[in-house]
Amino acid sequence: MSLNDMGRAAKDAAYALATAPTAQKNNALSVIADELADNQAAILAANHKDIEAGRKAGLPEAMLDRLLLNEARLEGIIADVRNVISLDDPVGSEIDCRVLENGMTLSRRREPIGVIGVIYEARPNVTIDIASLCLKTGNASILRGGKETFHSNMELVKVIQTALEKTGLPAASVQYIEKPDRELVSELLKLDQYVDMIIPRGGAGLHQMCKQNSTIPVIIGGFGISHLYVDSSADLQRAPDVIVNSKIQRPSACNALDTLLVHRDVAASLLASLVPVLNEQKVSLVATDEAMPMLQSANDVRAAGEQDFDTEWLSNTLGVAIVDDVQEALTHMREHNASHSDAILTNDLAAAEAFINGAGSAAVYVNASTRFTDGAQFGLGAEVAVSTQKLHARGPMGLEELTTYKWVGKADYLPRP
Amino acid sequence: MSLNDMGRAAKDAAYALATAPTAQKNNALSVIADELADNQAAILAANHKDIEAGRKAGLPEAMLDRLLLNEARLEGIIADVRNVISLDDPVGSEIDCRVLENGMTLSRRREPIGVIGVIYEARPNVTIDIASLCLKTGNASILRGGKETFHSNMELVKVIQTALEKTGLPAASVQYIEKPDRELVSELLKLDQYVDMIIPRGGAGLHQMCKQNSTIPVIIGGFGISHLYVDSSADLQRAPDVIVNSKIQRPSACNALDTLLVHRDVAASLLASLVPVLNEQKVSLVATDEAMPMLQSANDVRAAGEQDFDTEWLSNTLGVAIVDDVQEALTHMREHNASHSDAILTNDLAAAEAFINGAGSAAVYVNASTRFTDGAQFGLGAEVAVSTQKLHARGPMGLEELTTYKWVGKADYLPRP
Repeated sequence: MSLNDMGRAAKDAAYALATAPTAQKNNALSVIADELADNQAAILAANHKDIEAGRKAGLPEAMLDRLLLNEARLEGIIADVRNVISLDDPVGSEIDCRVLENGMTLSRRREPIGVIGVIYEARPNVTIDIASLCLKTGNASILRGGKETFHSNMELVKVIQTALEKTGLPAASVQYIEKPDRELVSELLKLDQYVDMIIPRGGAGLHQMCKQNSTIPVIIGGFGISHLYVDSSADLQRAPDVIVNSKIQRPSACNALDTLLVHRDVAASLLASLVPVLNEQKVSLVATDEAMPMLQSANDVRAAGEQDFDTEWLSNTLGVAIVDDVQEALTHMREHNASHSDAILTNDLAAAEAFINGAGSAAVYVNASTRFTDGAQFGLGAEVAVSTQKLHARGPMGLEELTTYKWVGKADYLPRP
Repeated sequence: MSLNDMGRAAKDAAYALATAPTAQKNNALSVIADELADNQAAILAANHKDIEAGRKAGLPEAMLDRLLLNEARLEGIIADVRNVISLDDPVGSEIDCRVLENGMTLSRRREPIGVIGVIYEARPNVTIDIASLCLKTGNASILRGGKETFHSNMELVKVIQTALEKTGLPAASVQYIEKPDRELVSELLKLDQYVDMIIPRGGAGLHQMCKQNSTIPVIIGGFGISHLYVDSSADLQRAPDVIVNSKIQRPSACNALDTLLVHRDVAASLLASLVPVLNEQKVSLVATDEAMPMLQSANDVRAAGEQDFDTEWLSNTLGVAIVDDVQEALTHMREHNASHSDAILTNDLAAAEAFINGAGSAAVYVNASTRFTDGAQFGLGAEVAVSTQKLHARGPMGLEELTTYKWVGKADYLPRP
């Protein structure tokens, strides 16, 4: 089937999905969960092929571990599908409703976006994850996974499509681009006649490529330098815990702390109590010339170079700089791509508000860790992606962000403009 | 100044605007209104140059009339600016706020999008209109108007920038691309480092060009075939008024009716009472073979060809087709690009809901005219654009749609993921 035919089939499926009752969509999800359990052997066998091929191709162990499915991981995936069943269906809910002076009742009603194209790398759980979130919100999806998990993905999509057919929904509600040709990705990005939104799930290169080439709106996300600014009014006793949590809890995450900014008045005092904890956690420091003398007791510290404060570390490294006040902190953040998650520690209300309003970040925290930026932490029930662009959705995206709205005006024939 | 320099200046201005108090922004708007009045002579003289040039270039009279500024029109523009002052500033308002189980207070706070690029044609009022709406919402704007109104736009932007400087806001809050080179438009569409959103205001060609070439999110809008479906349960006495209003009130508008779909059971009866009114209004009919025999008394009727139901008439022409029921109406609409404004006339609740949920339109009406799709009618206070895409905003866009949101989490140091 050509990509164009897939697009047309997806659009047709989207019409059916858009008006499918929640009970029918939940039933499909329930059957998907059951079928995943019933087909465990086939799925693990397919995944084994991928792992073997990956090993032959010399993929690093960490990568192979990301690709791997086993009984426990498959059970986790199945549990995630059942969790999606339990979430509220946003379709049909109304954002607002008013009665106009002329008597018309005007509301904005949520509905599915339509067809969503998803381009992702490596981990096979994304296949089930995104397919079930799209299905719950009445969207058709066209998936394109990485070649490293080709066999796993094919098996998983087969399970999904079987379940869809069993429950009276079009199999084309979830489609997978099988052919390995790379140009199919470019073609998908220009299939604006049928596809309404593109979600890339992967590295910066993938996002950049989608942004440059897509004629379809793309959800760009996941990048940006995360900063934590310790104001002079901050509680210095409690500050180290928040800093360490932000940096260390999961250094490879996009919301992990990259740069610590400290108010001049409290820099010596804070860093004196912080360095021993950072040493213990094996954190490497990269500091401005001004901060260097305060970090002499650090086990691993070097002077910062030109690019260091523009680097998303994704590791145990932490940048350190001294600033005069919240405005200088904000200026530093502006110059160094603060766009994801940033925090201020302060007990000064004006400083907190200046930071909140002045930071260019999708999520801003007062006296809390940058690590909170997460759909589950935010109580969204699911996380489709984390957007760092400003249109449509920003920050963690839940089910509502997979919907659009239409205006619904109800009158009694007579109102006239 | 290069476009890149303009982008950087706009970004800097956007940071200042983002935290400017509403009073300061309103003051700037007030001074803009005053300066427009004070500089009436210079503005009309500049516009006179454009009109003369247009006349020499052989522009049609209707076009010249669109370009023309006179005292009355300038007064209208000034009144529009004063109206923007009276609107609520959405910046800083919160969309929602919740307290998480761990005690964090989490809200979504509206803030400006940043830098907005606007590409428009002909009418010089757009310059003031979009600049004042962007300014009110704390966004910097980079404007690119049509060459036909170059002198008018330059004069208007000079007035705006003078007013900005007088009120302590950066002049670069509103910038205009002066050089006529067409490639600057393509360059603007790829200035994603600085520009956050592109709004095209013009014909389908301009929108298509932006969609194909922009690496920045674009608000696509204004197109789509508008349908009105008369259900068998409709009040046939009142139907003609709504149909005539939809078609005739302003045939050149994008929400004017293109296609009338009539339920088979009431087709003969409805069309018998409708045709005399359509004759009176000089409406030309384009009908399916099935509808033709019922339209014998029409003054101007012909059989529809292949493309007719895909044509946005923007004139006194109306397509007519007979359908079996609401589902067949929806199928027709799907096949013929219903994406803007569509209406059902019915007294049947199930038919109304089926139509609302099944129509792919930005705005759907029950027993009302398609002409209602308009920011002023919807009580939005201003209309930035009418979006027919599904992301970010759909249908008429007001001030809120010129904002994004950030997540704001406030805690007391202690909550832990």
